[in-house]
Amino acid sequence: MPAAVSILTDLLIIFVAAKLVGELFTRIGQPAVIGELLVGVLIGPFALGLIGRPGPELLELFHDDPAVATEALHLALEVFAEVGVVVLLFFVGLETRLDDMLKVGWRAAIVGVLGVLLPFVAGTALMLALGEPTIESLFIGVALVATSVGITARVLRDLGVLDAQEARIILGAAVFDDILGLLMLTIASGIGSTGEVNVGQVITIAVLALGFTAVVALAGTWAARRWFHLVDRLQIDNAPVVVSLALMLGLAVLAAAIGLAAIIGAFLAGMMLAEIAEEYELGRKMLPLYEFLVPFFFVVTGSLVDPRLFLQRETIGLALLVTIVAIVTKAAGAGLGGVGLSGRSMSIIGVGMVPRGEVGLIVASIGLSMGVVEHRLFSVVVVMAVATTLIVPPILNWLLRPLVEAHRLQAAEVPGHADR
Amino acid sequence: MPAAVSILTDLLIIFVAAKLVGELFTRIGQPAVIGELLVGVLIGPFALGLIGRPGPELLELFHDDPAVATEALHLALEVFAEVGVVVLLFFVGLETRLDDMLKVGWRAAIVGVLGVLLPFVAGTALMLALGEPTIESLFIGVALVATSVGITARVLRDLGVLDAQEARIILGAAVFDDILGLLMLTIASGIGSTGEVNVGQVITIAVLALGFTAVVALAGTWAARRWFHLVDRLQIDNAPVVVSLALMLGLAVLAAAIGLAAIIGAFLAGMMLAEIAEEYELGRKMLPLYEFLVPFFFVVTGSLVDPRLFLQRETIGLALLVTIVAIVTKAAGAGLGGVGLSGRSMSIIGVGMVPRGEVGLIVASIGLSMGVVEHRLFSVVVVMAVATTLIVPPILNWLLRPLVEAHRLQAAEVPGHADR
Repeated sequence: MPAAVSILTDLLIIFVAAKLVGELFTRIGQPAVIGELLVGVLIGPFALGLIGRPGPELLELFHDDPAVATEALHLALEVFAEVGVVVLLFFVGLETRLDDMLKVGWRAAIVGVLGVLLPFVAGTALMLALGEPTIESLFIGVALVATSVGITARVLRDLGVLDAQEARIILGAAVFDDILGLLMLTIASGIGSTGEVNVGQVITIAVLALGFTAVVALAGTWAARRWFHLVDRLQIDNAPVVVSLALMLGLAVLAAAIGLAAIIGAFLAGMMLAEIAEEYELGRKMLPLYEFLVPFFFVVTGSLVDPRLFLQRETIGLALLVTIVAIVTKAAGAGLGGVGLSGRSMSIIGVGMVPRGEVGLIVASIGLSMGVVEHRLFSVVVVMAVATTLIVPPILNWLLRPLVEAHRLQAAEVPGHADR
Repeated sequence: MPAAVSILTDLLIIFVAAKLVGELFTRIGQPAVIGELLVGVLIGPFALGLIGRPGPELLELFHDDPAVATEALHLALEVFAEVGVVVLLFFVGLETRLDDMLKVGWRAAIVGVLGVLLPFVAGTALMLALGEPTIESLFIGVALVATSVGITARVLRDLGVLDAQEARIILGAAVFDDILGLLMLTIASGIGSTGEVNVGQVITIAVLALGFTAVVALAGTWAARRWFHLVDRLQIDNAPVVVSLALMLGLAVLAAAIGLAAIIGAFLAGMMLAEIAEEYELGRKMLPLYEFLVPFFFVVTGSLVDPRLFLQRETIGLALLVTIVAIVTKAAGAGLGGVGLSGRSMSIIGVGMVPRGEVGLIVASIGLSMGVVEHRLFSVVVVMAVATTLIVPPILNWLLRPLVEAHRLQAAEVPGHADR
């Protein structure tokens, strides 16, 4: 069996496990995403080891070096996971109209800014109080900043409440959050490497990131409304779907090239097509791609969880402290941005912004590679990223119940709306 | 940018290149697959290098070892390619009813057997005549045997002639071809490693391979007809598509575990669902997966072509000789199996079986790793695999023209058939 074919086995196990557990969780009235994350932990290389462990073909390809073969296998699975979360955010974008986003624009900006500031200040202060060096404290503060919106977006979509005001505020705030996180990382990296902030570089990145977002959201939506119908002139099969996929991948790559998260680009690509999505039935037609690819992200994310991290005596105390700070300050900061809304709405917004996913890890690993973050603190950040990711779906599910109920009643009142 | 995200850039370039060239080739009246293969050669690491070359993130992940980083990147791209060709053969299976296959069963078996025997005998005899050792000659003979049906299947599907008798004979023959190739590889490996044939092992593999094919084709089709409707009881979204995907991946992995090609399993999975595919609109619903994933196989296959191989003075003479033998004997053997049909039909069947793709490479690389095949002869097999793959689509396209024409007329006569 060629090495690439041996990885099909991992893909099969991930897919079947995700769907079986999805069926089970749907039947017990829980979001499938919780099941996918948990089954990922279970079948991952640190527990049952059904996935993520290289077979003989892979070992042979990498000259019997198990570490390299494992790394290469994880890389291949992570590419599927990344495509999965890109498809997810593209779908979320398809269901998010620019006009609706602009209505909550100011609110989203405030949620984004407060949700970034509080964790940063609290994280840095905590580290300084514990006697860590300034630069290291700064990096840990920045690592606590960036929300990874994939988990929350999936819960919101699974529950069918993407069109709720809270959902839009969270999605908009995630864009601001990502831009701010990028700027803070640039600043921290500058201080870490040269000891000072390169103001020109920070301004360039700010202009690029804001410019990219504004151009795609505003000009992109306008251009799609005006010119998307040109796809009808193409000769290839399924041209609307093909062009949409190219836009999704293209903007994801462009966002990543600027330094933003790829999923922000995918979300914006979806949003710029939101107005014409209904006419071309993009969401309905592309659904199999969602069903096939999205579970890879959640199962692979779960499989990265090493339960032994939670058993390390020397770091677990600090890790739990940092995790609590990460959860409380993000929820408080982002929630505070929702002031004026109901308490439940503020809670939804706050909790929805809590997951950090891999973004914090990227910051910490940059610090690690620059030699300004110790290994001990890196694994603290890993625990924080894992814990904030796993804790959110059940809480959010519980907080959103009344909203889901209201949507269901509303759908029942408007004939024909239910099966949209 | 995380390393996995950097590979999104390769995926984007492959996808956009495939679709642009697909549009161009459709407009000039050529099958898109030819364009995808050629654009793969063009953008591949041996020409323009737009894909398949690791960026800084990948190099860092693999400790600045360019060889390992390149290997890991290729592995990730090949997994997408493999999923692509699995999806392709699954679709081909969906359009192939068991009853129709059984009607051409004997014919397909004869085509398969003759198409295996002639290249094996001629290849081995040629090597012996050139003074190569017996075991090495045997391995080269086996490397010339196995048809890789993906290329031909794509051309047949692109041209809309999958339901032609010639297409069914080719697909059935490819299954026999794969089983025979596996048995001959087992025999050659036995002789290469221990000097003798393990008859028990050969029988076990024969029983497994034939049993797998028969059980999936016969019992699988029966079971699908009887029990597939149980998917309606599942709670997950799009259950028919999800279960089909699980069957596709599952049988592909099972076939590979037995030693057959993964695509044979995927083809059988599709065929067992062919009868219920129309009721559940499986083909139509899953089309975006086809559009998204299938091009990866053809562009990545093209990108593996190293034009320098054709410029190696010391081997190119032998390589061309072997390639000509591989083409002529396979076309003659398989074509001869079509005796009694028209000359054009025999030509279509013969040419359709010519592509060897990666199967010959696997045989040669096993011989290489056992130390019974020299590097020089390995690169001869690479040239043969590449040349037989690239040469077939244009010839097949030309041979099939009248058939395509006839189909079009037939479709025009039956109202409503054309837009099926």
